[in-house]
Amino acid sequence: MSEASWTKGMAGVVADATAISSIDGERGELRYRGYLIAELVERASFLEVVGLVVDGELPGPTDVAALEGALADRALPAAAQDVLARLPRDTHPMTVLAVVLPLLDDAASKERPRLGARPAQRAALLALAARLPTVVAAWTRLRRGLAPLAPDPALPLHADFLRMTRGAAPDAREVAVLDATQALQMEHGFNASTFAVRTVASTLAPLSESLAAGVAALHGPLHGGADEAAYRMALEVGGPEAALAWVDAALARKHKIMGLGHREYRVVDPRALVLRPMALDLARALGPAHVRVLETLAAIDDHAAARFAAQGKRIRANVDFYKGAVFAALGLEPDCFTALFAMSRAFGWGAHALELWDDHALYRPRAAYRGAPPREVPRPTMV
Amino acid sequence: MSEASWTKGMAGVVADATAISSIDGERGELRYRGYLIAELVERASFLEVVGLVVDGELPGPTDVAALEGALADRALPAAAQDVLARLPRDTHPMTVLAVVLPLLDDAASKERPRLGARPAQRAALLALAARLPTVVAAWTRLRRGLAPLAPDPALPLHADFLRMTRGAAPDAREVAVLDATQALQMEHGFNASTFAVRTVASTLAPLSESLAAGVAALHGPLHGGADEAAYRMALEVGGPEAALAWVDAALARKHKIMGLGHREYRVVDPRALVLRPMALDLARALGPAHVRVLETLAAIDDHAAARFAAQGKRIRANVDFYKGAVFAALGLEPDCFTALFAMSRAFGWGAHALELWDDHALYRPRAAYRGAPPREVPRPTMV
Repeated sequence: MSEASWTKGMAGVVADATAISSIDGERGELRYRGYLIAELVERASFLEVVGLVVDGELPGPTDVAALEGALADRALPAAAQDVLARLPRDTHPMTVLAVVLPLLDDAASKERPRLGARPAQRAALLALAARLPTVVAAWTRLRRGLAPLAPDPALPLHADFLRMTRGAAPDAREVAVLDATQALQMEHGFNASTFAVRTVASTLAPLSESLAAGVAALHGPLHGGADEAAYRMALEVGGPEAALAWVDAALARKHKIMGLGHREYRVVDPRALVLRPMALDLARALGPAHVRVLETLAAIDDHAAARFAAQGKRIRANVDFYKGAVFAALGLEPDCFTALFAMSRAFGWGAHALELWDDHALYRPRAAYRGAPPREVPRPTMV
Repeated sequence: MSEASWTKGMAGVVADATAISSIDGERGELRYRGYLIAELVERASFLEVVGLVVDGELPGPTDVAALEGALADRALPAAAQDVLARLPRDTHPMTVLAVVLPLLDDAASKERPRLGARPAQRAALLALAARLPTVVAAWTRLRRGLAPLAPDPALPLHADFLRMTRGAAPDAREVAVLDATQALQMEHGFNASTFAVRTVASTLAPLSESLAAGVAALHGPLHGGADEAAYRMALEVGGPEAALAWVDAALARKHKIMGLGHREYRVVDPRALVLRPMALDLARALGPAHVRVLETLAAIDDHAAARFAAQGKRIRANVDFYKGAVFAALGLEPDCFTALFAMSRAFGWGAHALELWDDHALYRPRAAYRGAPPREVPRPTMV
């Protein structure tokens, strides 16, 4: 009969410690292991960011080569291929990921994590994260009625991913933008999916099943899904010239504009600042239809920011706002955007599981009880 | 750059409020919605306990009949049957549950939970929980090389479950003990699996995928698995006459005896007090081999309690200690015991999801940062 107080959504509740990332909402700063996200995206490669997030330091050239090798093993186990081929074609890509993830382990890494077995679990994480793009690409083709393509271990992760979705090699600019976008969304503190992964991993559950809990949480529209919603909104608005009227109508109806504002950032989401010009550059290279979507989004962002500023509020687009347009420009269907989020965040989720296992405790928070008082069960009536 | 303090494993951290159950560790009391667990198991039926946990009050006869009807729809959707038939036969039953659960929804209930849609989500929960025993029974048969049996909606849930595992109707005593055991382990506050379910559900993820996160957490040996370990230990010890020497050797080696003690209870786990005599009665009805296992467990419990008492510690068997012997007596394989835990706990997990959706907030706790200080990314060397 606890009388303890609590805050809804665990707002302000410190659940655990981490060394992986830090968010300064007042300054609009996100750092991975001490480095500002904008500097990382500008100066480090995708693999360097993976190494940093997973291992704690920016890797040197030898370590990057080793990472490249570890991520080359991206063919799916037979059971996963088999299940993918049998799933109803209207299954949501996030449900597909949740179903297939527990089947992506090698037999060896399916062994339950033992404390102090970091190298083995790190290898298991890289194997799982390497295979997620293969799953997403296979599903993209299967539901288009095409046969999945086998991975090419000689290609970098995202070049191979794009090739497996479309059958042709992507150009270098596409890969660079996808690398940057995925680096931007790799890690973000104790968001609900990462926290779900930590909670499951705290029981020493298999890593693949801990990551599947992250996928499930990201499937919730309050967590993943804003990228898809913002992209569909841009299509609905139709063009930058219609943005001002649309924003005013939305604000008048008190309609929430998906992808604007972020619970963690008081000023601006630093990832959106990096992504906006990059997305526009990509769109310019790929054609006027893509430019139009990006210019619509930018106009909504700017108009809404001006309206909010007039009310004394600082609300700008977050990273999800421009992300969907990038993925769409790369040829992916809107209901796949969150699966790409999962592909990248898997490295972050896994880093959290490894961190927790290094200094382990089972998660078992307290509950404040606010239910019925003690009472007696009626005795069954004798017949 | 938070300087906040934290406690490992969220010990003592109040994460949220609940009205579903309360634990008084000092008194050794567990209550579902205000009722002591021992009274519930003695005086209420399994379906009444389900209704109580899910809906908040002990159901009357009409509500029990409606629950019975809702739980009769336990045939598996085609996709789930298809995937089950294709999984490698050495897949762990908990991995099987994690893989198949997201495929157990009806198309209608796969719709994402909307706030304020409790009746629809409650129906979805009962449909999912009704189908888990069908999955466990099907897997039990498939890996024995037998074809799964279709459910019989005219039978009560656990009678049908036992029939589907073995092809013959169980006797009433077996069903009564399984009903009681499953009622005992239906709900237990913010344990790691329930907390994982709440975290995932807080994103408004589909209910089936929220429950799959609970399955994943229960797959961890620090959460589920003690029932299997205790049962295997009893087989290893061999008989009650060997228990004293075995306990002393284990204590001398500081070997942790699985199933003894419980983080939440200072005195005794009240569920173990209910289960021990019931398990022994069942064993007596089923034959001397089963009695021998139970007597071995009881002897270990008693000897260990005496040794701990001599050190001033009160450590008794918890509910997991006797549970595995019950499931084994009912003809189930040891690596399936945790799947039976999930079958029952699913009602508790679902009740927590419904409760959270009634008074909703996304879970987003804070992290204490203890990593590298702010630092600058080296600029790439110009070539």
